[in-house]
Amino acid sequence: MRTGRRPGNPDTREAILAAARELFADRGFDATSIRSIATAAGVDPALVHHYFGTKDQLFLDSMQAPFDPGEALHGVLAKGVDGAGERLVRMIMGIWDSPAGGAATAIIRSAVSNDLFARMMREFITHRILRRIAKDLDVPREEGLLRANLVASQIAGLIMVRYIVKIEPLASAPVETVVGLIGPNVQHYLTGDLGGVSAELGNRQPRRGGPKSRDRELP
Amino acid sequence: MRTGRRPGNPDTREAILAAARELFADRGFDATSIRSIATAAGVDPALVHHYFGTKDQLFLDSMQAPFDPGEALHGVLAKGVDGAGERLVRMIMGIWDSPAGGAATAIIRSAVSNDLFARMMREFITHRILRRIAKDLDVPREEGLLRANLVASQIAGLIMVRYIVKIEPLASAPVETVVGLIGPNVQHYLTGDLGGVSAELGNRQPRRGGPKSRDRELP
Repeated sequence: MRTGRRPGNPDTREAILAAARELFADRGFDATSIRSIATAAGVDPALVHHYFGTKDQLFLDSMQAPFDPGEALHGVLAKGVDGAGERLVRMIMGIWDSPAGGAATAIIRSAVSNDLFARMMREFITHRILRRIAKDLDVPREEGLLRANLVASQIAGLIMVRYIVKIEPLASAPVETVVGLIGPNVQHYLTGDLGGVSAELGNRQPRRGGPKSRDRELP
Repeated sequence: MRTGRRPGNPDTREAILAAARELFADRGFDATSIRSIATAAGVDPALVHHYFGTKDQLFLDSMQAPFDPGEALHGVLAKGVDGAGERLVRMIMGIWDSPAGGAATAIIRSAVSNDLFARMMREFITHRILRRIAKDLDVPREEGLLRANLVASQIAGLIMVRYIVKIEPLASAPVETVVGLIGPNVQHYLTGDLGGVSAELGNRQPRRGGPKSRDRELP
């Protein structure tokens, strides 16, 4: 252990963040403890708590997240599922049009171009976003995760088209126009009829640490 | 002009592709001529035609596109708009699950992490994809472009979630399950009621080089 470092040393803080990224990406959020991150960084666990507080906060900081999407989404869904699709699209654009938008785009760029960050992003989205949405929806957990995943597919595509590749007319469309166009589809994913396919999917989803799914049927 | 280079020289071919990328990204597809690419690359225009045939093909080659998405989409829409949403989602997954999938992912990575490629991608999607879809839909052109743009937002998000960040359950779901879940939303964007918001968009969309469109009539 490199105990010679003083608290407040920016190298120490960075070493903890680097260790956290590696472990969260490799083992996943649940299997990564503050203690294991401290060991990997060569510091005392108390120092990790001192710098970052909770494991949740360390996770957000290691992603350089400019806001907590889980909390933001919870805020949207706490007002009820009616109209949540439109509120969610509006909130996402509010973030991307704010000063935090640059940092949020940087995270997506990292996740797409760097495998470590892609794995971090997977954990981040699953833990901080999908599970929160799934919990707030009044449906069985697996169905909630699927619905949240579908929502993520539409939101991620909107961010790509409007903010990253910037394709017209969506790139320059007024916020409320986009809310009116895309909100209903997000609402459909949250509360609409998914045609019974979600029940089928519940039995096929591979789980971390479990056997690989072999029953994938391709046409 | 570096006329000392012989036809078949891989450096010449690469110089043409590099010049094409710069010009397509900077000026857009329409404003870029074979002649201007030849001048920028320091070769005779005849050599550009010799290597790449048409400007369309040079565009595809400069993006390193493993297939022509415009042709593929035209194939989907030529069978009629009924069920086109599901066929489109199925076709996209067919490409990404094929050997061409790696090259297709590489293009998206480049577009997200590199500004030159982002601008290329914008031109590519607008010209090779959105305009084809818009043409095949039996609606006014501006409405067709908006609908195609919305389709692109859902398809881009599906690719991100399933193939790039790989979030479960969508990453491992059987193709036909995903078709059943996402196809209806794509179909809605192609032929559904967009709630009149698209009419408003007509007055705000910035146009490349031209006057603003004022004559758009949307439902």
